[in-house]
Amino acid sequence: MSSSYGENLHLTIFGQSHSPAIGMTLEGIPAGEQIDFEALQRFLERRAPGRNAYSTARKEADAPEFLSGLREDRTCGVPLTAIIRNGDTRSKDYAPFSAVPRPGHADYTANVKYFGFQDYAGGGHFSGRLTAPLCIAGGICLQILHRRGIDVISRIRAIGDVEDSSPLTASTAEKAFPTVDEAAGEAMQAAIARARAQGDSLGGVIECAVLGLPAGLGDPMFGGMENRIAGIVFGIPAVKGLEFGAGFAAAKLRGSQNNDSYTVKDGRIETRSNHCGGILGGITNGMPLVFRAAIKPTPSISMEQDSVNLETLTEEKLRVGGRHDPCIVPRAVPVIEAAAAIAVYDALLGRKKELREEAWT
Amino acid sequence: MSSSYGENLHLTIFGQSHSPAIGMTLEGIPAGEQIDFEALQRFLERRAPGRNAYSTARKEADAPEFLSGLREDRTCGVPLTAIIRNGDTRSKDYAPFSAVPRPGHADYTANVKYFGFQDYAGGGHFSGRLTAPLCIAGGICLQILHRRGIDVISRIRAIGDVEDSSPLTASTAEKAFPTVDEAAGEAMQAAIARARAQGDSLGGVIECAVLGLPAGLGDPMFGGMENRIAGIVFGIPAVKGLEFGAGFAAAKLRGSQNNDSYTVKDGRIETRSNHCGGILGGITNGMPLVFRAAIKPTPSISMEQDSVNLETLTEEKLRVGGRHDPCIVPRAVPVIEAAAAIAVYDALLGRKKELREEAWT
Amino acid sequence: MSSSYGENLHLTIFGQSHSPAIGMTLEGIPAGEQIDFEALQRFLERRAPGRNAYSTARKEADAPEFLSGLREDRTCGVPLTAIIRNGDTRSKDYAPFSAVPRPGHADYTANVKYFGFQDYAGGGHFSGRLTAPLCIAGGICLQILHRRGIDVISRIRAIGDVEDSSPLTASTAEKAFPTVDEAAGEAMQAAIARARAQGDSLGGVIECAVLGLPAGLGDPMFGGMENRIAGIVFGIPAVKGLEFGAGFAAAKLRGSQNNDSYTVKDGRIETRSNHCGGILGGITNGMPLVFRAAIKPTPSISMEQDSVNLETLTEEKLRVGGRHDPCIVPRAVPVIEAAAAIAVYDALLGRKKELREEAWT
Amino acid sequence: MSSSYGENLHLTIFGQSHSPAIGMTLEGIPAGEQIDFEALQRFLERRAPGRNAYSTARKEADAPEFLSGLREDRTCGVPLTAIIRNGDTRSKDYAPFSAVPRPGHADYTANVKYFGFQDYAGGGHFSGRLTAPLCIAGGICLQILHRRGIDVISRIRAIGDVEDSSPLTASTAEKAFPTVDEAAGEAMQAAIARARAQGDSLGGVIECAVLGLPAGLGDPMFGGMENRIAGIVFGIPAVKGLEFGAGFAAAKLRGSQNNDSYTVKDGRIETRSNHCGGILGGITNGMPLVFRAAIKPTPSISMEQDSVNLETLTEEKLRVGGRHDPCIVPRAVPVIEAAAAIAVYDALLGRKKELREEAWT
Repeated sequence: MSSSYGENLHLTIFGQSHSPAIGMTLEGIPAGEQIDFEALQRFLERRAPGRNAYSTARKEADAPEFLSGLREDRTCGVPLTAIIRNGDTRSKDYAPFSAVPRPGHADYTANVKYFGFQDYAGGGHFSGRLTAPLCIAGGICLQILHRRGIDVISRIRAIGDVEDSSPLTASTAEKAFPTVDEAAGEAMQAAIARARAQGDSLGGVIECAVLGLPAGLGDPMFGGMENRIAGIVFGIPAVKGLEFGAGFAAAKLRGSQNNDSYTVKDGRIETRSNHCGGILGGITNGMPLVFRAAIKPTPSISMEQDSVNLETLTEEKLRVGGRHDPCIVPRAVPVIEAAAAIAVYDALLGRKKELREEAWT
Repeated sequence: MSSSYGENLHLTIFGQSHSPAIGMTLEGIPAGEQIDFEALQRFLERRAPGRNAYSTARKEADAPEFLSGLREDRTCGVPLTAIIRNGDTRSKDYAPFSAVPRPGHADYTANVKYFGFQDYAGGGHFSGRLTAPLCIAGGICLQILHRRGIDVISRIRAIGDVEDSSPLTASTAEKAFPTVDEAAGEAMQAAIARARAQGDSLGGVIECAVLGLPAGLGDPMFGGMENRIAGIVFGIPAVKGLEFGAGFAAAKLRGSQNNDSYTVKDGRIETRSNHCGGILGGITNGMPLVFRAAIKPTPSISMEQDSVNLETLTEEKLRVGGRHDPCIVPRAVPVIEAAAAIAVYDALLGRKKELREEAWT
Repeated sequence: MSSSYGENLHLTIFGQSHSPAIGMTLEGIPAGEQIDFEALQRFLERRAPGRNAYSTARKEADAPEFLSGLREDRTCGVPLTAIIRNGDTRSKDYAPFSAVPRPGHADYTANVKYFGFQDYAGGGHFSGRLTAPLCIAGGICLQILHRRGIDVISRIRAIGDVEDSSPLTASTAEKAFPTVDEAAGEAMQAAIARARAQGDSLGGVIECAVLGLPAGLGDPMFGGMENRIAGIVFGIPAVKGLEFGAGFAAAKLRGSQNNDSYTVKDGRIETRSNHCGGILGGITNGMPLVFRAAIKPTPSISMEQDSVNLETLTEEKLRVGGRHDPCIVPRAVPVIEAAAAIAVYDALLGRKKELREEAWT
Repeated sequence: MSSSYGENLHLTIFGQSHSPAIGMTLEGIPAGEQIDFEALQRFLERRAPGRNAYSTARKEADAPEFLSGLREDRTCGVPLTAIIRNGDTRSKDYAPFSAVPRPGHADYTANVKYFGFQDYAGGGHFSGRLTAPLCIAGGICLQILHRRGIDVISRIRAIGDVEDSSPLTASTAEKAFPTVDEAAGEAMQAAIARARAQGDSLGGVIECAVLGLPAGLGDPMFGGMENRIAGIVFGIPAVKGLEFGAGFAAAKLRGSQNNDSYTVKDGRIETRSNHCGGILGGITNGMPLVFRAAIKPTPSISMEQDSVNLETLTEEKLRVGGRHDPCIVPRAVPVIEAAAAIAVYDALLGRKKELREEAWT
């Protein structure tokens, strides 16, 4: 189903940009898991707008209200629902887009899909704002994973042409601009500033690694870790590409270069390289699970664009007003982490089903 | 679940490389769809080995036996099951890999996941041979889509460093080596021959386009066409990357370059470019749905490799015997088409649920 | 997953008796369906307590707030979420039940399942109050079905030993006490009054019929209409039995009596009797779909009962305080209708996938 | 989806009465589970026809061939597929039923659902023969459950008017006619013989108990054990009613009678009675899980019946030829056990996900 994810967890995201609220329901978290609400709030703030010069100045209070699923600060085993109220609902700002779709947005495809009944205000259910409830779910999963020794780290790998090629080995969560190489980060911010000055926008690449995973997670074929991560990451607006380990570069390597040979380190099996991104046959091998997502440039630009009036079927010029991020990539970093955490925790719960009970064999 | 795919269709792939048979069950095809068995067989032969100099000489008779779901040559509405018998089952060739995993294969991860109970012979359920039943399912979907004016075409986009950058506009199914640019195809074959001579292997990129799709297919968020295609394509062994439209290159474009502006052509809304690969907000816009999959080099190489004995936890040299494709990419082309067809037909069936009944409103 | 239902629709019920809110998310309703909020409110009031002498005097304002999924009064195609705030949350009334489980309630099983982390207040997620969001979802489906000529009617068939054996042919929704035979209804109310006077409770049987269904709904085996209705009706607290058509009585008939012979009426195929309850092989035959659900007597009684202290593992006497319905059956009637409507609409959406497109064959 | 069942297991049943084969695919059984093929065969023979005077004389060799999912006699963690070849396929015996549907069978509903493309031979996918693959899956689950101290027992509770009211406490699997009270069993057999002599048929009730279950299995609402068992048991042809514990009789009890009071026995919490059938709030309480299924009389009778010609829409007399069971109930007993075992094992796997990891808290 469209807005649901998970095999063992079951996440549903609901809401539109200008509906009374947005939110999420998460089923399948076992009872007794503690939630640190302050840490969750700090995580959500990494996604929130208005944090930096390069992001939109709109003010959104992304403070979730938990409606169900808790007894005090612990899960009680039943569906967990949290909502975020939308402050400035039913704005008239977006009315024109019902007839003249913004290029690069879902305005036109939503119009066709929903036979004109879509909620077009603010992009409706397609708004990037819907990544906030994804971050609530992911933020909770991150806390649960962390207690099991599993951590998700990520960074901006590229903005436009500027790349951060230093190895990703530690969290960038505390950084105002989440790169490993700070010089690269400054160059990226300069590029964003240039694009903004021209009324244009930039995309980029986010790299994510999951550390501390046991070997044996995931399933063959359509249940592979790649499929599971793709199933949620492509649900983040603007993601148009995804690669694991060496990814597209692997296609240029020879087998003798790309194969990760095995070794023993501290009595534990490891691989010398990690071109496979920690996944073989869809299943984790205990090395870091590494992936990169390509984010297209924000489609909302202030330059004039060509579009079509859907009612008259004539071409029309369009200028997207309002304040918009010239580059969504920095705010998408925690969203990618959230998505990875949900996919990994879902797989971890599935793994528990397979474990052999000593007394049962 | 691991080996199942689909929301409206429901495909399950079963079998191991050396089990009595491999096969597939496909639920959800409406009753009355005709199957052209000869066309299906021709499609399966595009995947079969031994077809070219660059593929392994093993002989496999990939002739499916249909066990259920048909009345003569038409679907009767209930689960469709077809199997392919495995000729040379229970071979002893693969016994050593139970203790010493082949780098780049799923030997080690399967060993961990299944607690040593995995069927290691020939790679078991992780064998590339399991793409044959995927092609049975996909071949049937391709026929059904074709009758509705929808066609899936694809080609080898790159082998190692050699690229075919001519535009993909027509099927390459009839070609012995499926590129658009034949000179590029010859260079690719030469590269494969060189790798083979050195006991090494090559990977590549496959590009696929779905033509004739209506706008409005797919769902928001986790039900987007990207998610759906990723969910099946990452189930094909060796796929490590996937991108839609401009994909990773979009991350380097500006919004003003990447946005596809709308125009009207023959009374129909189109976009001037197709950087989005025919998908906006997860939903088709009526332009060709375009994606590329990165295929890693075949992990089976005849060069000596480093591995570890899982029983003794000591390092061991390993040499993979037998005959193996130095490059799996050409045989993977119809598999990618099959996967795309299944994902698209599944979405098309889902779309039917939403259609408005004139008499009902 | 526990609190989710549906194959084409996707319903999730969330909330606990004393959590900030209870609610539901319903995915899969096509865009453009109109909701009559007043009619929905009237439907919800049929379930609300305090309506009659025989139901508890607690006052609950079951007015749903819609958070998402609408554009004005029409569905916009994305998940529909509605909540009902809980007024008197975090009450201390239920604290003792965490240690001494009430017989007939889920207190003990929830304690085991959730390792003591359950939300025991007011029965938590197991409270009958959770049927309110089920009625929101069902009330919407009832409106949609009604526009397609499909109506769900039901009545109290029995309370304790008193039976209403008049045939069910029309809605009892307007009646204060929903029986067909009013004399039987009065006898039932008298029986409830007697039980209440003794601090005891009564159960009963609800009969439901879905009229106007087309033939051909439902799927073979586990997708049969019986399975689908059972899958939701057994989710209503206190339902312990379910039968279709002649049901358990059919087990006493001979084949020659139970088989429903075919006839033609007004050019339409019908059956002379309806022992099969409108379902053969899991699929509707166009006759009324008829089922009956057995409701156990309310477990909350004011008489003293034997229980066990879970902490000390010693037997303890228990007396359940507060105000409780001596018979939940009357309030369960609209809940059964809601459940039937959801199951039927889900099947109807599934049926649309199979319909043959004229231009496509 | 129609012919699939399970949340943690995933069972698909395929085949038609006269297709080349029938079979099942079962995903989700963890690797390493041993299968005793001889015990499985003995279990399948309890369902096979021709075993007694009261069952049809047709000879079916219900010997499954395992195609995948095993390494020798143990599951290897991937989909398990087994088939049974159909001997006398494509018989002409059933041709007339395509136009004149047999009362009580799915002939008419299948004709509508599949737009005339159904496989009508032998009842197609709706044939009782499809319970054979259900018994393969269930027989395997029974073995796995037995190793964990869980056993499924059952018996004929009633045939027509004859009832076996002795308590069910032990397996009847070894009995030629599976009742507890042998006198009742003889009276039942006499009743069947009378019905057969008159060309008529009889139905009955089967009672089943699952012993040794831990408390805490199942989920609230739609994931309750009642819903789960109903979801599979109503997939068995001819089941028209299902009740748990006291079931429909509970509707006639007062709360003070129906509530099962708690007690402590050998340091373990039990209930003094078991009116709830071992399930409260959908979750097991550790007492025997008890249910009864109503089986309608076999619709195939040799007496003349009224039907309708679907092509001419005129009434026609019909006489069902061939040899048919005058009472399917005895052969359905192991099928009910199989269904219960699958539902219970599925819930047990789900339970493993929730278990608290000591090192993780």
